[in-house]
Amino acid sequence: MPRTTTYTVTVQFGDCDPAGIVFFPNFSRWMDAASLAFFMDCGVPPWRELVKTRGIVGTPMLEINTKFMKTLTYGETITITTHIEEWREKAFIQIHKVTRARDSGDDVICEGREVRVFVKRDPVDPDRLRAIPVPEDIRRMCS
Amino acid sequence: MPRTTTYTVTVQFGDCDPAGIVFFPNFSRWMDAASLAFFMDCGVPPWRELVKTRGIVGTPMLEINTKFMKTLTYGETITITTHIEEWREKAFIQIHKVTRARDSGDDVICEGREVRVFVKRDPVDPDRLRAIPVPEDIRRMCS
Amino acid sequence: MPRTTTYTVTVQFGDCDPAGIVFFPNFSRWMDAASLAFFMDCGVPPWRELVKTRGIVGTPMLEINTKFMKTLTYGETITITTHIEEWREKAFIQIHKVTRARDSGDDVICEGREVRVFVKRDPVDPDRLRAIPVPEDIRRMCS
Amino acid sequence: MPRTTTYTVTVQFGDCDPAGIVFFPNFSRWMDAASLAFFMDCGVPPWRELVKTRGIVGTPMLEINTKFMKTLTYGETITITTHIEEWREKAFIQIHKVTRARDSGDDVICEGREVRVFVKRDPVDPDRLRAIPVPEDIRRMCS
Repeated sequence: MPRTTTYTVTVQFGDCDPAGIVFFPNFSRWMDAASLAFFMDCGVPPWRELVKTRGIVGTPMLEINTKFMKTLTYGETITITTHIEEWREKAFIQIHKVTRARDSGDDVICEGREVRVFVKRDPVDPDRLRAIPVPEDIRRMCS
Repeated sequence: MPRTTTYTVTVQFGDCDPAGIVFFPNFSRWMDAASLAFFMDCGVPPWRELVKTRGIVGTPMLEINTKFMKTLTYGETITITTHIEEWREKAFIQIHKVTRARDSGDDVICEGREVRVFVKRDPVDPDRLRAIPVPEDIRRMCS
Repeated sequence: MPRTTTYTVTVQFGDCDPAGIVFFPNFSRWMDAASLAFFMDCGVPPWRELVKTRGIVGTPMLEINTKFMKTLTYGETITITTHIEEWREKAFIQIHKVTRARDSGDDVICEGREVRVFVKRDPVDPDRLRAIPVPEDIRRMCS
Repeated sequence: MPRTTTYTVTVQFGDCDPAGIVFFPNFSRWMDAASLAFFMDCGVPPWRELVKTRGIVGTPMLEINTKFMKTLTYGETITITTHIEEWREKAFIQIHKVTRARDSGDDVICEGREVRVFVKRDPVDPDRLRAIPVPEDIRRMCS
């Protein structure tokens, strides 16, 4: 079984829209937080340190697919369960499952499937980010 | 050809992350703005009026898939081109193509494919939102 | 001494800007969360229940003053300490002190002073919000 | 009269909270956009260029005071009028006035007063930002 971490969020008033439910881009924001928390829980330093020691700036997204099953409002607490489903040479698939605890069993609120890459700055044009092969040591720490 | 609208965004400093590029949930936020702008450009009143006249609260998301082709930073202006690709009985597929104008032809920055539904509040439990069949008149205005 | 509550936030990558520090409007967002958490910790129901039982929609801001002492980056955890400094007939002053724990004593990151009012919807024009006198029972619970 | 610029925002659905009005931290976000737009309209390059040519990372906030006069909802368009009220040796006071056009004269929605500084990275510890004297040429361009 792959390494799996959990990340908890309590939904705030300002996270919700005039319909009274979570404005959906906030789920992407929380999944991004869960993604970084996953790496840090696995022992990977934060990007601001990796950029100094190894030039790694972060893990930008190539693609994200999110399915929404239930709505959510403020005051509720959710758990995001995160693991990496697949490692490719230059990308990885990270899965986030968002649930709400219920006495009668957990509600699944939504699920995200992200394709991400590790990037460094281009040595010639530092404004460009370049995907690098998945670092072997990071892969080992996170599998 | 289906009705197509455009929506323009200038990327702000605060939309970008420590890597200097747009924090990706902002693309979902802009696509949501483009989605509502599409309906309003087609002549549909804003949700806050439709909720009073017809009980329609909005068009929550069932699923969103976004592909990211290029990064973007602040000070740049993007155009979101929006249309509805498919109408189902109780859902519709809305496509958003995000481009940046270039002398040498447009850069495609990212593309989103959203599955959305029209909802009303449940008459028994107004905290619950219920999908309704796509209103025929709205469909006609937006096709 | 007035009732005082604490609210904890871990700063995320996406909360930071291209300078690598928290994009300052996020502090307002967290103070708003701390404001509502204060009321709920004092036993006041969330606004979505108060709107049904008493018509109270929330506590919009009349004025906010924030002083920034130190910068903050992602991965750091802050504590927001909240109390109400003054109750007026139709407004109250809420203070939020944001600190970061240090071995050598806490760093003060920023401080917010908010003037807020309780509001109901105008019975004639429900799109308008009207300030009401501070409810005596809520004042007692929060003092 | 000091240089004055204007910046326009159309309020989006996702900018509003469950009370149906703009979630107030968004005003800070728009004022920050208006602040940078002011400098760029005055001919100052974006920070991402100034950081390369002169080491200037941006203009973080020391203090912000915002007064809210009227509420606002989505679909409405606002104009932010920005100028610098006072230049100090190491700080400047920037004023943002947010109005909504009305046939009967403009509504003032809110007003912000920001104290900001120009910063560079500390040469010894690049994670620290240091305020510098207001650059004379920038002051001239913006007065």
